[in-house]
Amino acid sequence: MKKLSDLGERNAIRLIETILSKGDAAVGIGDDCAAFAIGDEYLLVTTDMITQKTHIPKGMMPYQIGWFVVAINLSDIAAKGGRPLGLVLALGLPKNTSELFLKELLKGADACATRFDTSIVGGDTKGNSEITICGTAFGLVKKDEFIPRKGGKIGDVVAVTGSLGKAGAGYLASTQRIRDTTLLKGLFEPIPRIREGRILASLKVVSSCMDISDGLSSSLYQLRDLNQVGFEIYSEKLPIASELLQLKKRLTIDVTECAVHFGGDYELLLTISSENFEKARRKIEKIGLSLTVIGKVTKNKEIIMKLKNKKKILENKGYEHFKKNDY
Amino acid sequence: MKKLSDLGERNAIRLIETILSKGDAAVGIGDDCAAFAIGDEYLLVTTDMITQKTHIPKGMMPYQIGWFVVAINLSDIAAKGGRPLGLVLALGLPKNTSELFLKELLKGADACATRFDTSIVGGDTKGNSEITICGTAFGLVKKDEFIPRKGGKIGDVVAVTGSLGKAGAGYLASTQRIRDTTLLKGLFEPIPRIREGRILASLKVVSSCMDISDGLSSSLYQLRDLNQVGFEIYSEKLPIASELLQLKKRLTIDVTECAVHFGGDYELLLTISSENFEKARRKIEKIGLSLTVIGKVTKNKEIIMKLKNKKKILENKGYEHFKKNDY
Repeated sequence: MKKLSDLGERNAIRLIETILSKGDAAVGIGDDCAAFAIGDEYLLVTTDMITQKTHIPKGMMPYQIGWFVVAINLSDIAAKGGRPLGLVLALGLPKNTSELFLKELLKGADACATRFDTSIVGGDTKGNSEITICGTAFGLVKKDEFIPRKGGKIGDVVAVTGSLGKAGAGYLASTQRIRDTTLLKGLFEPIPRIREGRILASLKVVSSCMDISDGLSSSLYQLRDLNQVGFEIYSEKLPIASELLQLKKRLTIDVTECAVHFGGDYELLLTISSENFEKARRKIEKIGLSLTVIGKVTKNKEIIMKLKNKKKILENKGYEHFKKNDY
Repeated sequence: MKKLSDLGERNAIRLIETILSKGDAAVGIGDDCAAFAIGDEYLLVTTDMITQKTHIPKGMMPYQIGWFVVAINLSDIAAKGGRPLGLVLALGLPKNTSELFLKELLKGADACATRFDTSIVGGDTKGNSEITICGTAFGLVKKDEFIPRKGGKIGDVVAVTGSLGKAGAGYLASTQRIRDTTLLKGLFEPIPRIREGRILASLKVVSSCMDISDGLSSSLYQLRDLNQVGFEIYSEKLPIASELLQLKKRLTIDVTECAVHFGGDYELLLTISSENFEKARRKIEKIGLSLTVIGKVTKNKEIIMKLKNKKKILENKGYEHFKKNDY
């Protein structure tokens, strides 16, 4: 009998789509958020579950677990340009979990929520054999500000917020037992791009967008399949995270490979016309944040990495759950 | 160090309340749903997590697991009088889970959602060492139709929808290895009282309400603490489930004890003035459903069970997670 480990996460999602009845959602399964029309706005809803084995490596503090689950849910709201309304958290915890662990976890969750002007408004607590935390975030966005996944046009530029490889640097540090809290923060305390998302949404300039939680290469492949276009990515323009460059002094690593394939960065990847890009970049830089062009949308449906005059196919080495080769 | 097993679920919730920052929610932690004002309506949000060990006994079919997680979330929407907008499901599944299991689970979830005119609009799939499913439901209710938990008045009658002890009968059947699918359905396929909730909400007559997922006695104690009143419950008026009466022919059981203390029935427990009760009962019976008076709200803050002329304190034998005496 077929097992989920043979199927992989994306095939599982396709299976889910075929079984579930269509409802009133304007956007549903497979996107960052589900979206419902309420008056002239969309209600955005997203849910993400994290578990001890897959998402909570040794060295991750309870405070960071709480921060992380809130951040990754808010990241999905950010990808749609939404302003968060609130979150609910369901906590599955082993019976021998300490009260202190619960307190610290909640402090981290609360800190991330309040940092983005929202709050945890409810939840559930249950026993579980491993720590399992399910967050659900909801938010609102005006219909005409909603950022789609589909709409990227040939000639648009490809851009990302922030920097690439912070999470990769944190992961490598943790596996190599380099106890550097700044490096670990890049993995354990991602920053959801709510502010950038709101600016981009209010300008109504983004032709397609998603967060790169699964890694840049994986996300490019998903956007390609949906938009039926290709991408040319300029290796030298990638905003490599300073954490990764710093780690390079201590470990033999290919920073570009790490920045491009490693999941966990929770930046926004988007397509936008070049004129609009400048407008968006200025507004985002004004508040001390960043948006960087890393490539362009092409007619040719390949995803090419360009380094000076050399071109090569950028492979899809994305992260998929259930698959046997999970890292 | 203090463990969650020493603390119990309700103390854990109190702890959670003290740590989290207050947000914009009109109703938050500790209620059936969080509620947010959007125009002249409230957005209702609720989340419930179920796990293999605690909620998925042997004999529960994958289809029923899916049904169950949707039903218990919709039950919280029902308790506020809401109409469901949709649900998201996060599935934590062991890698060796079969594709068939996933399909059946989704069919059950979809069947329960569509039965109440709503749908599953998104979700998440992750690996987990035990089956862990987290559902989040959201809905809308007009502000003036919102059913509160607090507001029960001395002299109001106490009423419940449906019948009591279906889940208890199913539980006893399953532990006694009585393979009777009708009995098991009472435990595994609860009916969320969305329709009754909508009728009660539109009449604007309920003074306080909650669902009795934790058992009638536990719910009465929660309503008492919140409303600072007492209750007198008439033993002979309890709408004992036919499933439980049927089981009595095969097992030595105290049907009243079972109906009153066993969790899992997902009926609505409410207080309402006696004039309004008649109006509500008629409207609910018109669509083939039921609402039964089981007692009255008293000034004396005790919870009394009255059988003919005898009175005794109705004990709080509610179900709490984490506690060592989980059944």
